[in-house]
Amino acid sequence: MTLPRDLNGAESLVQTLAASGVSCCFANPGTSEMHFVAALDRIAGVRCVLGLFEGVATGAADGYYRMAGTPAATLLHLGPGLANGLANLHNANKARSGVLNIVGDHALAHARFESPLKSDLAGIAASVSHWVRCSASAPAVGADGAAAVQATRDGASGRLATLILPADTAWGAGGCAAAALPAPAAPVQLDAVPAAARLLREQGERAVLLLGQGGTRSEHALQLGAAISARTGCRVLAEFYNARMPGGRGRARIERLPYALDLALQKLAGTQALVLAGAADPIGFFAYPGKPSQLKPPGAALLTLAAPHEDVPAALQALAEAVGAVPVAPETPAPPAVPVQGALTPAGAAAAIAAALPEQAVVIDEAISTGRGFGSAMAAAAPHDWLQGMGGAIGFGLPAAVGAAIGAPGRPVLALIGDGSAMYTVQALWTMAREALPIVVLVFANRAYRILQGELQGVGATISGDKARAMLSLDHPALDWVALARGHGVPAVRVDSAAALAHALRDGFASRAPCLIEALL
Amino acid sequence: MTLPRDLNGAESLVQTLAASGVSCCFANPGTSEMHFVAALDRIAGVRCVLGLFEGVATGAADGYYRMAGTPAATLLHLGPGLANGLANLHNANKARSGVLNIVGDHALAHARFESPLKSDLAGIAASVSHWVRCSASAPAVGADGAAAVQATRDGASGRLATLILPADTAWGAGGCAAAALPAPAAPVQLDAVPAAARLLREQGERAVLLLGQGGTRSEHALQLGAAISARTGCRVLAEFYNARMPGGRGRARIERLPYALDLALQKLAGTQALVLAGAADPIGFFAYPGKPSQLKPPGAALLTLAAPHEDVPAALQALAEAVGAVPVAPETPAPPAVPVQGALTPAGAAAAIAAALPEQAVVIDEAISTGRGFGSAMAAAAPHDWLQGMGGAIGFGLPAAVGAAIGAPGRPVLALIGDGSAMYTVQALWTMAREALPIVVLVFANRAYRILQGELQGVGATISGDKARAMLSLDHPALDWVALARGHGVPAVRVDSAAALAHALRDGFASRAPCLIEALL
Repeated sequence: MTLPRDLNGAESLVQTLAASGVSCCFANPGTSEMHFVAALDRIAGVRCVLGLFEGVATGAADGYYRMAGTPAATLLHLGPGLANGLANLHNANKARSGVLNIVGDHALAHARFESPLKSDLAGIAASVSHWVRCSASAPAVGADGAAAVQATRDGASGRLATLILPADTAWGAGGCAAAALPAPAAPVQLDAVPAAARLLREQGERAVLLLGQGGTRSEHALQLGAAISARTGCRVLAEFYNARMPGGRGRARIERLPYALDLALQKLAGTQALVLAGAADPIGFFAYPGKPSQLKPPGAALLTLAAPHEDVPAALQALAEAVGAVPVAPETPAPPAVPVQGALTPAGAAAAIAAALPEQAVVIDEAISTGRGFGSAMAAAAPHDWLQGMGGAIGFGLPAAVGAAIGAPGRPVLALIGDGSAMYTVQALWTMAREALPIVVLVFANRAYRILQGELQGVGATISGDKARAMLSLDHPALDWVALARGHGVPAVRVDSAAALAHALRDGFASRAPCLIEALL
Repeated sequence: MTLPRDLNGAESLVQTLAASGVSCCFANPGTSEMHFVAALDRIAGVRCVLGLFEGVATGAADGYYRMAGTPAATLLHLGPGLANGLANLHNANKARSGVLNIVGDHALAHARFESPLKSDLAGIAASVSHWVRCSASAPAVGADGAAAVQATRDGASGRLATLILPADTAWGAGGCAAAALPAPAAPVQLDAVPAAARLLREQGERAVLLLGQGGTRSEHALQLGAAISARTGCRVLAEFYNARMPGGRGRARIERLPYALDLALQKLAGTQALVLAGAADPIGFFAYPGKPSQLKPPGAALLTLAAPHEDVPAALQALAEAVGAVPVAPETPAPPAVPVQGALTPAGAAAAIAAALPEQAVVIDEAISTGRGFGSAMAAAAPHDWLQGMGGAIGFGLPAAVGAAIGAPGRPVLALIGDGSAMYTVQALWTMAREALPIVVLVFANRAYRILQGELQGVGATISGDKARAMLSLDHPALDWVALARGHGVPAVRVDSAAALAHALRDGFASRAPCLIEALL
């Protein structure tokens, strides 16, 4: 690639991104980003993927990072564009995904006037970003871009960086492409290994080794956890939500903490020591009247073996050596039978998925209430990666499927989504069709915010009337997912039995193109 | 209604809202709002409308305020829920609509832990709200609610207030319903009347009386503007975007400033004095290289007759009296003929709309590129109100139609929407179906971000390749709006001629139920 002699700011940024290893941009541009769009056009090296809503772009960047391991850029239009992408940026933050937001803004001289699109862009950016910078001039843009890419890295974890690009810094002359800045390696911190080894040995089954982030991301880390457990007698668990976790036949199966507070408290009852390997001090998702927020039993010891941004596998390796752990062969449970008759149940759906899942699939899990019990069936499925929404903001799943498919080219993607969640960022279906991505979307149509029907009891609220019931139900009218998918250019079928679901899944994966299955529960 | 003896915080808030005249809540609740939902269920007086995405709820609140003149509440779920509604809150701000956001948050004791849904809620709220408060205890919630409703009023204008409701303040005992707090009347400020009268008389056609907000909201204000113009020889114009503006046969027709910068500068060329009646100092929507931001010619005098939050009609009345203006009969142009053959054009669409519009319709204008030239045809239509997106964040139209239909019961609503905009908050279609609202949605399917194809040239960017073209086009695949509507439970038809459009519009209005028309351009 030969560099043009005179770059504008936008061109210097695209050059810089390409040089820094950012090779994908999920975009929903507006007027203030037109020069960046034009620069993407002229300069090779950055793939550009259009979303019809900004939440699609930001959720895709999260899914992309989890599979590719490098940050994607998003291209967003002023404060409102960033705002539309904010919920999935929140999710990306909680997943510790690296994302570089490029947000166009008014030209610097225009920004002092009260124009319609003027907003508190810096405030919105600060609410979700670890790093925010507004380019001051076209010549500064290249260096700002390189700094922004660097800022998306925090050891083993990613972070959110937001670069605000006033329109005149994009169109202005004097752009200078910048070289990539170094990304420091994940810190290896082994100070806690001896204490952790002692705790696990002493406490045995009263100790829990809790895995998160790098502790659940690789087969190797999961194997280490299983081996440490086998050797010391401690229990090993994973956090309830995991950004990426290998699963399926032949892989160490690590049970996850339950979502439901009472079950999680029960699971940790009697624990005297908790050793955190990439995991956080476990907390209930919500508070409930008269119940604790912390899941750790009062008085239990808490020891951080490795923080999420550190090299967790290295710490687990050292711990395994310290306790003298040896590899253990994973159990592979028998696959559950796919029911041949009867209405579709969550268990039947799990069996159908486990039976139909192709090798090396990427599974996006936003199945919320329907999917909570899938873990045991999935242990018998073909080897796969399992990606969950990490921040509790629904609308993660469909966009993340887009990003995962682009971040892991060639791998089939299965998106498990509740109907309530799927509606939040339904526009992602169109991007799947446009980019011809091999994604099977499985919508669980229970026609309700089912999780809330449960939470209502959890928080001790009672309803007796139609007004509240209407707030929690998605019927009247029922959403027609087959029509919604077709409207976005995605073929679709409706199923109401496990056998039909398994059949539809196999057809969908065989097509190596997007399709949607509406599963009536 | 008898008051329960022992209210919880949520119940005290619902009581307070009802007492303060807030009778509608656009909701997308989650776990932390369950007690508020239960309270809405038990206590009469507040209608509850579910949206399947928060941008639907906030955009509906904007449309509701513009028609009802009183604020609606929104019910949103923690930081991500508020974030999803932020773009339409930005629009509501620019429209000076009053909106009361009730955002559930974690229980106070839970908020210090790093739970998945913890976010910078206060920061997100501050980015868009004039007033933010977090309730500290259940007994404080009622008074906080009354203060929040009061904070949505700023003289003649509305404002955004955000009340953060930690879950334990909702479920806690000791709630006290509060009485409504007074809403100060709009200030009447007549100090500038003599100077304005002098300027307009002296400058004649070199003076422009620019109307905005209260200056364009009522027939009476428009008539005063027309009369002042007729008497003094000054020109009278309205801002390009108007929150609500009466139009149609028998009403004073006030030309709007053009959106396009060059046309707007041309329209104001030679102006020596600009008198602002509820309008702001006019500014270009975007900046363009080498062009001014301010539309006022350099050196021209600028005089504020009345600020947007003041009683603009009172100031116009005083000005009319000061110059001795007398009412003028409005011209009613002949309606344009509906073309009987040929492909559908924007002009043909305008003629069809003008011919089919029923009396007292509310028209939501988010037609962006297609709708810019509709003004002249609409002057011949039946009397109507015209509501525009005010903040430039697309995705306003469909939600605003929901809110307008509920805020002006019995009046037919026509939503004119570009396909790019309609996709942003497409979930609003479902709420139209659920609430059986009399809304005709007319989607202009040019299958492109057509406005950006123009803006690209405006900012001097040039594209030559497919990558940039793909960023501005919505084809590959084409959205099927008939399927999308049906998927949401809304019947739909596709038309490609003006005659078929007029026919479909008449059918749609006659149904007094939601329907969607996809107009291929």
